[in-house]
Amino acid sequence: MLTLFYAPRTCALATHIALEEAGAKFEARRVNFAANEQRSLDYLKLNPKGRVPALVTDKGVLTETPALLIYVAQTHPAAKLIPEGDAFALAQIQSFNSYICSTVHVNHAHKVRGARWADDTDVIEAMKKKVPETMGASMALVEEGMLKGPWVMGDAFTIADPYLYVISTWLAGDGVDINRFPKIAAHLKRMEARPAVQRVLAREAA
Amino acid sequence: MLTLFYAPRTCALATHIALEEAGAKFEARRVNFAANEQRSLDYLKLNPKGRVPALVTDKGVLTETPALLIYVAQTHPAAKLIPEGDAFALAQIQSFNSYICSTVHVNHAHKVRGARWADDTDVIEAMKKKVPETMGASMALVEEGMLKGPWVMGDAFTIADPYLYVISTWLAGDGVDINRFPKIAAHLKRMEARPAVQRVLAREAA
Repeated sequence: MLTLFYAPRTCALATHIALEEAGAKFEARRVNFAANEQRSLDYLKLNPKGRVPALVTDKGVLTETPALLIYVAQTHPAAKLIPEGDAFALAQIQSFNSYICSTVHVNHAHKVRGARWADDTDVIEAMKKKVPETMGASMALVEEGMLKGPWVMGDAFTIADPYLYVISTWLAGDGVDINRFPKIAAHLKRMEARPAVQRVLAREAA
Repeated sequence: MLTLFYAPRTCALATHIALEEAGAKFEARRVNFAANEQRSLDYLKLNPKGRVPALVTDKGVLTETPALLIYVAQTHPAAKLIPEGDAFALAQIQSFNSYICSTVHVNHAHKVRGARWADDTDVIEAMKKKVPETMGASMALVEEGMLKGPWVMGDAFTIADPYLYVISTWLAGDGVDINRFPKIAAHLKRMEARPAVQRVLAREAA
């Protein structure tokens, strides 16, 4: 039995979707960001980083989206969320997911999490200004060089897809019109047509 | 045959060490950052991100350190740089490497790469001020909760070790005294005693 700690509209949605797509047995536990529950002593005992997602397994707690995604895929092989026996293809997926976590999510975080990198209110405000530009540039690289279509890696749906989907849902709030990127816009619609994604969105909205 | 595009003192060092530890057949090609070669048309054709590392394989080019590391490990199984058949242990390595790329390296980048996230010179300068604090906090999490010792994952040397080592070599420049973190300081010494690491450091310094 797995337990996913998540908050709605965060990157935890990627793992939430992967678990649902995998047909995993899991419980989804909401962390109340409005009440700052992610910084509570109980939650910090579980995840000292004070963030989501965290996945509680029978062997221990895992954090960081790319790690949770590969774990869900490897422990649910029947769902075929990663290619089997193809080190290059797996590395391409890890490359995509690393780019999302280390560059794209970081660009996005400069909008509302600037206090991670500066103390001065003016500086934190100034960081917000460049977010439409940095997110737009990241999405251009995805559109032109990474998203093969119909899914990120081509014909097969993989753990790269729910991660891209999360970013796509953030674009409007980041001041980026998704329609500048027709392949990414079509990918978002394709994701939202999947029954597993619809189940997860309903659960997170409930 | 593999070709690693690297620049000295960058995170490409992690992959460089992993290749050497794996006994891989590879060529190391230096990218001249002083001449801005990473933004040259030839290099951008190879890696549109304009950064290092990039690993040219017979199937195509891979980027992003966590992806390169897992690729080197999986294609050189005799070197045992990742655990075999243990999805949880592999996910722990991916979690560590994701934390390094998405949080620790990003904290470090606010010292000299602030222009990624702001245009204003004052703002870029202000970002530098918090780097000793953010890098110190990241290292405290590594010291207290991640580095099992003697290697990151315990008794086995894995692809997490060269990545931590790169960060350790940056700490003095980031205003963090590594001796605040005895386990990390001992890990750095242990890394520098490895013949493969010494060969790579000599090559990068040549």
